[in-house]
Amino acid sequence: MEPSDPDYRHRVAPIIESTRFIRHIGMTLDDCGPGWCRTRIPVEDSLLQQDGFVHAGVQGTMADHTSGCAGLTLVKPDQTVLTIEFKVNLLRPALGETLLCRAEVLRPGRSVIVAESWVEVLSGDTRKLCAKATVTLAVVPIP
Amino acid sequence: MEPSDPDYRHRVAPIIESTRFIRHIGMTLDDCGPGWCRTRIPVEDSLLQQDGFVHAGVQGTMADHTSGCAGLTLVKPDQTVLTIEFKVNLLRPALGETLLCRAEVLRPGRSVIVAESWVEVLSGDTRKLCAKATVTLAVVPIP
Amino acid sequence: MEPSDPDYRHRVAPIIESTRFIRHIGMTLDDCGPGWCRTRIPVEDSLLQQDGFVHAGVQGTMADHTSGCAGLTLVKPDQTVLTIEFKVNLLRPALGETLLCRAEVLRPGRSVIVAESWVEVLSGDTRKLCAKATVTLAVVPIP
Amino acid sequence: MEPSDPDYRHRVAPIIESTRFIRHIGMTLDDCGPGWCRTRIPVEDSLLQQDGFVHAGVQGTMADHTSGCAGLTLVKPDQTVLTIEFKVNLLRPALGETLLCRAEVLRPGRSVIVAESWVEVLSGDTRKLCAKATVTLAVVPIP
Repeated sequence: MEPSDPDYRHRVAPIIESTRFIRHIGMTLDDCGPGWCRTRIPVEDSLLQQDGFVHAGVQGTMADHTSGCAGLTLVKPDQTVLTIEFKVNLLRPALGETLLCRAEVLRPGRSVIVAESWVEVLSGDTRKLCAKATVTLAVVPIP
Repeated sequence: MEPSDPDYRHRVAPIIESTRFIRHIGMTLDDCGPGWCRTRIPVEDSLLQQDGFVHAGVQGTMADHTSGCAGLTLVKPDQTVLTIEFKVNLLRPALGETLLCRAEVLRPGRSVIVAESWVEVLSGDTRKLCAKATVTLAVVPIP
Repeated sequence: MEPSDPDYRHRVAPIIESTRFIRHIGMTLDDCGPGWCRTRIPVEDSLLQQDGFVHAGVQGTMADHTSGCAGLTLVKPDQTVLTIEFKVNLLRPALGETLLCRAEVLRPGRSVIVAESWVEVLSGDTRKLCAKATVTLAVVPIP
Repeated sequence: MEPSDPDYRHRVAPIIESTRFIRHIGMTLDDCGPGWCRTRIPVEDSLLQQDGFVHAGVQGTMADHTSGCAGLTLVKPDQTVLTIEFKVNLLRPALGETLLCRAEVLRPGRSVIVAESWVEVLSGDTRKLCAKATVTLAVVPIP
């Protein structure tokens, strides 16, 4: 996939570093490229649900935001993306020290971008897929 | 709908008050009954995305957790619910002082419960639907 | 909701009557209005799955197409709608003589319309909800 | 992935060949293995929507049924699968001679199986992804 804006890296970083809720859950950027993005979250107690696993909402947030950043790498300098809808399947209890997310654009449309996110949990040396999401993004002019 | 556990209120309250991530985003219980639940979140800066709206992930978390609580009102004392998947449509920018969520069970199955959540944002006297979700829950024995 | 095209009824009817696959499954229009549509399918053997119930794919098709028609009642004369995505929960086995579907627009956006469909099965005098769908539509110029 | 029933091939074939609606849309089995399945549909006029593309409902049916068969390869001889929900994104207009579908199990749970389907359209020598689906299946005893 070809980025419309060669400076896409400088667009993605602040969308992760400066977004209040993303900082609130401790998510950081690992890397990104045209049509993809990778992020991580160190698992803190504040992210857990009642059984000690990472809350489904954290996994959904991570999946949505990382897919949004993957989409952002492909739009023009005067465009941004907004989530139309996302759907996430929780596949296994998320029990571990770190969440890792990889997002890839499946369909880079001019007005709608569809991306997918895989959320894995790292526990010691073991890495397990705990959630899979599909995210539909609208490509919109920067307000 | 008939609750299998007449003490359902005492089950729902701690699932909201004691769940770490739910406290982290400031969500509280308004009320619940057999097959339904209502919650709220005061909008703080820490919940916003880059354009100043409440992050989609907050709305997804609220929708998922409130639907889970609506499902919890219907299961037996030795059962609980786990989210299998949730899907949320973001309908309008969530700009306001308070998020309000109402969840209702659509299908109270013995092993699978399907519920729906409506997330509204209150801005002054105006109340607008900003997200709609469908949540599929597994009914499982308490571990 | 206000129709942009007062002649919306004459637009919906052919989209049901002349669409090949819709005729192939025997779906007909019951009625429509601004932001809503109702359709039906007489249950024939050709629509069943291996256990004798109406196939999930028939229910999905009905839900998608009826929501599309509900959306179509709201767009301008030079616009039409295309399905971006749909999600359907199968709630009960669809066993009966007739499928009835009602679709309602939840969010009539200028470029994206979100609608919901309820599929019920009529068996004798009993009417049961067997599927619920959310459908996201793109508003596009007529090609 | 390991099949619980070594005779899985003899289970999948009739679920495609003898299912009424699946025959009605002309879908046939290409091949299957533990946790995966491949099917095809020759594009007939009866499968089209109003603009001459294959109807979204056909693609949804194909995605659902092929994922169901992928799940069926993994369950025990006295078990079968039922669709709990499916979600499909329509990525490109489906214009061509043949639809090809590949489904893969993402999470082979004991009571819930999650699978994914990719629907491609073959037009001359060109093969394009036109739909992507996620399918959640319940593992249930054979009635």
